[in-house]
Amino acid sequence: MAVYTEVSDEQLSDFVERYELGSLLSFKGIAEGVENTNYLVHTDKGPFILTLYEKRVRREDLPFFLGLLEHLADSGLNCPTPLRDREGQIFSELAGRPAAFVTFLEGLWIRRPQALHCSAVGKVLAELHLRGANFSRTRENALSVSSWRPLYLQFGDEANKIVPGLSEHIQEELNVLESVWPESLPRGIIHADLFPDNVFFLGDKLSGLIDFYFACTDMFAYDLAICLNAWCFEPDNSFNVTKARALLKGYGRVRTIEDEEIEALPMLCRGAALRFLLTRVHDWLNTAAEALVRPKDPLEYFRKLRFHRQVSSAREYGLEHGSD
Amino acid sequence: MAVYTEVSDEQLSDFVERYELGSLLSFKGIAEGVENTNYLVHTDKGPFILTLYEKRVRREDLPFFLGLLEHLADSGLNCPTPLRDREGQIFSELAGRPAAFVTFLEGLWIRRPQALHCSAVGKVLAELHLRGANFSRTRENALSVSSWRPLYLQFGDEANKIVPGLSEHIQEELNVLESVWPESLPRGIIHADLFPDNVFFLGDKLSGLIDFYFACTDMFAYDLAICLNAWCFEPDNSFNVTKARALLKGYGRVRTIEDEEIEALPMLCRGAALRFLLTRVHDWLNTAAEALVRPKDPLEYFRKLRFHRQVSSAREYGLEHGSD
Repeated sequence: MAVYTEVSDEQLSDFVERYELGSLLSFKGIAEGVENTNYLVHTDKGPFILTLYEKRVRREDLPFFLGLLEHLADSGLNCPTPLRDREGQIFSELAGRPAAFVTFLEGLWIRRPQALHCSAVGKVLAELHLRGANFSRTRENALSVSSWRPLYLQFGDEANKIVPGLSEHIQEELNVLESVWPESLPRGIIHADLFPDNVFFLGDKLSGLIDFYFACTDMFAYDLAICLNAWCFEPDNSFNVTKARALLKGYGRVRTIEDEEIEALPMLCRGAALRFLLTRVHDWLNTAAEALVRPKDPLEYFRKLRFHRQVSSAREYGLEHGSD
Repeated sequence: MAVYTEVSDEQLSDFVERYELGSLLSFKGIAEGVENTNYLVHTDKGPFILTLYEKRVRREDLPFFLGLLEHLADSGLNCPTPLRDREGQIFSELAGRPAAFVTFLEGLWIRRPQALHCSAVGKVLAELHLRGANFSRTRENALSVSSWRPLYLQFGDEANKIVPGLSEHIQEELNVLESVWPESLPRGIIHADLFPDNVFFLGDKLSGLIDFYFACTDMFAYDLAICLNAWCFEPDNSFNVTKARALLKGYGRVRTIEDEEIEALPMLCRGAALRFLLTRVHDWLNTAAEALVRPKDPLEYFRKLRFHRQVSSAREYGLEHGSD
């Protein structure tokens, strides 16, 4: 939630002239996005988002991320569409950072999702999976199972500062997940970070998805697991089966969830919980007191992980084999 | 530069319904304004700024600030116009804070002002002074000469942590200014904080003024002095007489600067420099390391103060008695 890179009026005016955007009318740094600097820019052609990519997004990944947005928008998914400059470039340089313009998406993110929102998210997630199928680029998931142990080893027993015994819990979980992590489930483009703040609604209607900077090629059902964790727990950490059922049913209406995907869900949910637990523990231990961004609570994901560890079958998520 | 108060989608939707604004389409916290929390809100009726007033703005001053904006906008000055809700209220409550909607002003603030910008600022400042004349409310300047010593006494010799001897310099200056501060110059509504980031331009044309939360009733020439300090020094702290002449001439085209105002300018510039030096020293010494807002450099205003102390007549600002 910060503006990391300040841009001057002159720098931005020059940058806008590279595009078919008419005159620059105003720009405001917006306090959203943990990873990058975002400006809301008004020009003669309307409102746009200008993103300056900070160090956590690698420049070599931008052709994938921005190309994917362009591909998905062309295929009819509501997501920010990158603008190409007069030379056809999809990103270029501003204030020493890679920078891109994308279209502005109206909508609000839902602080307290209900089952109907979960249903809409399931549906759009399946649409994303289907529409991504003929995108020509791929990107390995840099935060999948093989990265988890190296990430854990960056802090190790330091995790016990957050809660005693956390380090051992993580090790046990790594041992299990590394041995049973599924290999052969259907794969393709996944969003990998479809939290409520990345999904916009106008009234009860889903109006678009944003923030594709973790998108990659991985198992579709893993994306579902990330969403189950992000959308279907209550603030008191209880799991809401009604919401989970709505999410899975919404998904299933667009893309059939195969039996082996359903069977794998409990393990995928554990993995998805561990992945966010690991990055949150890392950020928690490495965020200086004077940082502009407050780190997110790691224990939220520790509690979700513990829930999934006691789940014995996907039935507990509200969906059975062969159900609609 | 921060969002101090988070507002949820539900809270804001309810708040928007109090106004004739149609549906809420989106809102983004914007990273501008040191004092308050600002959101850029899109509704069916266009873009608006929603301000939540944080502790530094007193609730009892809001009828003055917002009433003034309404008065000035009605009189034709380009400034944010407060919206009245269906009950005719100019502000109400949101997320535990007083909150108001104002119109969105297009424009950019100029990072490196040139003489033509100074001329435009002089002109608009005089327009503000004239148009404020028939505004019915008054507000004492809470940061004028009588407040400076109490403010200084809050830190005293602590100032020497910033630069050795600073405390003594401030005391000497207080002794002088308290004895010679002018009493009888023309008075009325002044902006009192018209820095470059509060003045918008579209191309070379001034498009509007913002941030009236220091506005008060005080000497017009003191407002000019604040602008001379804010607009006419170069980044190396040298005083640019060409810019000062442009600012004063621009002002003089709309409202005649009286001889006694011109004579008083060197002392008013010293006072204006001391006022910002004092608040910046205070903020510098009282800002916790983890604060979201970085305090502004106090020494910039110490250097400006030293410049004005060696000025012997207003001629050195580029304007003589009786000149146009």
